[in-house]
Amino acid sequence: MHALKAEMICTGSELLSGKLNLYVPLFHERLAGLGFRITREQSSGDDIGEISSCMAGALERSALVLVCGGLGPTFDDVTRQAAARTLKRRLVRSKACEKILSASFSLRVLPPNLSDQCLQVSGAESVENRNGTAFGEILREGRKMMILLPGPRGEWEPMFESSLNARIREAFPAAPAVDLVKFRIAGLSEPRAETLLRPVIRKFPGASFTILTGPGTVDFTASAPAAAGLLKKIKPFCAGILKEKLYGYGDETLAMAAGKKLAAAGKTLSAAESCTGGLASGLLTSVPGCSRYFLGAAIAYSNSAKTGVLGVKASTLKKYGAVSAQCAREMALGAAKKFKSDYAFAVTGIAGPDGGTPDKPVGLVFFALAEGKRTIMFERRFRHSRAHIRACAANFILDELRKILE
Amino acid sequence: MHALKAEMICTGSELLSGKLNLYVPLFHERLAGLGFRITREQSSGDDIGEISSCMAGALERSALVLVCGGLGPTFDDVTRQAAARTLKRRLVRSKACEKILSASFSLRVLPPNLSDQCLQVSGAESVENRNGTAFGEILREGRKMMILLPGPRGEWEPMFESSLNARIREAFPAAPAVDLVKFRIAGLSEPRAETLLRPVIRKFPGASFTILTGPGTVDFTASAPAAAGLLKKIKPFCAGILKEKLYGYGDETLAMAAGKKLAAAGKTLSAAESCTGGLASGLLTSVPGCSRYFLGAAIAYSNSAKTGVLGVKASTLKKYGAVSAQCAREMALGAAKKFKSDYAFAVTGIAGPDGGTPDKPVGLVFFALAEGKRTIMFERRFRHSRAHIRACAANFILDELRKILE
Repeated sequence: MHALKAEMICTGSELLSGKLNLYVPLFHERLAGLGFRITREQSSGDDIGEISSCMAGALERSALVLVCGGLGPTFDDVTRQAAARTLKRRLVRSKACEKILSASFSLRVLPPNLSDQCLQVSGAESVENRNGTAFGEILREGRKMMILLPGPRGEWEPMFESSLNARIREAFPAAPAVDLVKFRIAGLSEPRAETLLRPVIRKFPGASFTILTGPGTVDFTASAPAAAGLLKKIKPFCAGILKEKLYGYGDETLAMAAGKKLAAAGKTLSAAESCTGGLASGLLTSVPGCSRYFLGAAIAYSNSAKTGVLGVKASTLKKYGAVSAQCAREMALGAAKKFKSDYAFAVTGIAGPDGGTPDKPVGLVFFALAEGKRTIMFERRFRHSRAHIRACAANFILDELRKILE
Repeated sequence: MHALKAEMICTGSELLSGKLNLYVPLFHERLAGLGFRITREQSSGDDIGEISSCMAGALERSALVLVCGGLGPTFDDVTRQAAARTLKRRLVRSKACEKILSASFSLRVLPPNLSDQCLQVSGAESVENRNGTAFGEILREGRKMMILLPGPRGEWEPMFESSLNARIREAFPAAPAVDLVKFRIAGLSEPRAETLLRPVIRKFPGASFTILTGPGTVDFTASAPAAAGLLKKIKPFCAGILKEKLYGYGDETLAMAAGKKLAAAGKTLSAAESCTGGLASGLLTSVPGCSRYFLGAAIAYSNSAKTGVLGVKASTLKKYGAVSAQCAREMALGAAKKFKSDYAFAVTGIAGPDGGTPDKPVGLVFFALAEGKRTIMFERRFRHSRAHIRACAANFILDELRKILE
């Protein structure tokens, strides 16, 4: 049984001119839990015609339509007018709403801006808003439901939790709740991950899958109706295919995965970064509690820092250059010694866009991972922009660190 | 004269299940400069029927339609198929594209996943992508233009700058060009910035303004029809109001602003980071060419690193604690000495969520900025999440560095 279709309509010119749209990420899990899948989102400016055309299309396609924003008292708030036009109904003044606002503001007569907040689409069920003056509206049209909500999260969120949740469940008792699991993968390109995972997609036609690439990482998400219990089967099946490439689930990062292993083993870590310039350390220290295992790092961007701070030999730099396996090795050993850590890693490479040579092109990065006096070295060539090369390099070494700690 | 209508279609199930949609904020400025106003944005999952229905509606309403994402080589990339269905055209294999990919990968025969990247909607003009395997496509249908672009910013952004910009301008010569300037502001809260800038908004009713907050930063964008020449007046007016709070224009970052000043002065910089854990160094080294002035940094997360690597006195840690102005001062002086740099900064604080005390609550951060033996200290209290506190702290010290270099 498939999730029902829901659509979102987000109104406000600011959403089309620079403001991030946070509605969808915030609503999608709530709606999934109610058995709905968001199949389309539309953002529109504060224009009755545009909003109404968004509404008409959404109501034609989907069982549930959520409209956010445009219920305030100012000139550019036109969502109720658009809903009235779409449903060919009139706006009427709600006595119940007037009573609530009068009590809330201790006024016998409401001023025009508050009085207009009591206009509702005829036939609407109003939803009280304890954190603002805009009432929500639940509109039914045949089997469809359209809900108008105020824009600020501090207003719609409590309304959703306190009553809308239950009203949607009541109206759509047959909507199947959906389970979701996100597999976090490192060390595989997207095409390679897809090839590996194709058997999962074929084996479970009742589930939906999405794949998303990051710098050196891939997220694979499976969702399926909770009742089918498919995810209980998909989870071990995927894990068996992905093996050590699977570094976590949900919101777990590579830095969390590595940190968890270090903490469990009671081991400490330090780092030496050249081309990543603090990126890998920044990821490691984004994890709360990382001070248990992360001692520190030397960002040795200049050659003088490599020799002076990390003790890389001048002869090594002269013979092999700063971008070399030998230099990476001495950087890692130098960090381990300097910070007195059990493990240390080092990254040195050419992030570009300039500085590449035929011998050492942009994107070439050397890594070393030291455990005591033992070191492992890696050489990789990453592509694309400076930012991408640096992000890939940082993720690569965190992934190797995590794997060595298995 | 009004801007022409443009619409965006953003494809990818991840956009409907948790991933932030960054396309609209990134495209709106570019399109405004070309004389277009985004009137609607639609996000759709990876479904040919859904995407095609978004395309059909958008093409009916608007002169220009930009479609982002879904051009990759995996099963859920179906944008070209959707475009072919919408325009009732076939997909054809482009010889020119095959040539480019063969050369780029040094392959005589392309494997299926790469070969499929050469499929194009019949009649499309292809747009080369130097940072990935997905070609862009420019599709004309009567007077309308639909452009397919790969999802990653590192791919579509260079394509837009290098050729699409010019192609759109060519196709719509009558679109009234809009001038746009983004003022980049640091050290002001959003309400404070809005109050300061209100006179600008009142004085220039012919222009549009948006305001967008970052961690410790505010972007204020003004746009107006180029013909009116308003921006020539707005720019100095705003600069006069913002004074030293204005750190740059357009895409300039705080790290770029500070780096530019260091390079111009021929001075070098090093850093000592505790709670920011590499974030500030990561921002500094994201700027190409930063090796001219950035020598390196010590991420001294543990107390032993603060004493061992940076030479902070054990007595200082004992008396004042690691989160103190005194410790920040010794960290900065230690970094300047260790890296032999002209300038050095230090950051130490409590990023949370744990580790706060009544005396030293979460969000409390001390900074020091050393020039030779002279040091300046700062103490600030930031709010909200660990990530936000760290980002605010990194931006704060880069901003102070930039100001000291004025």
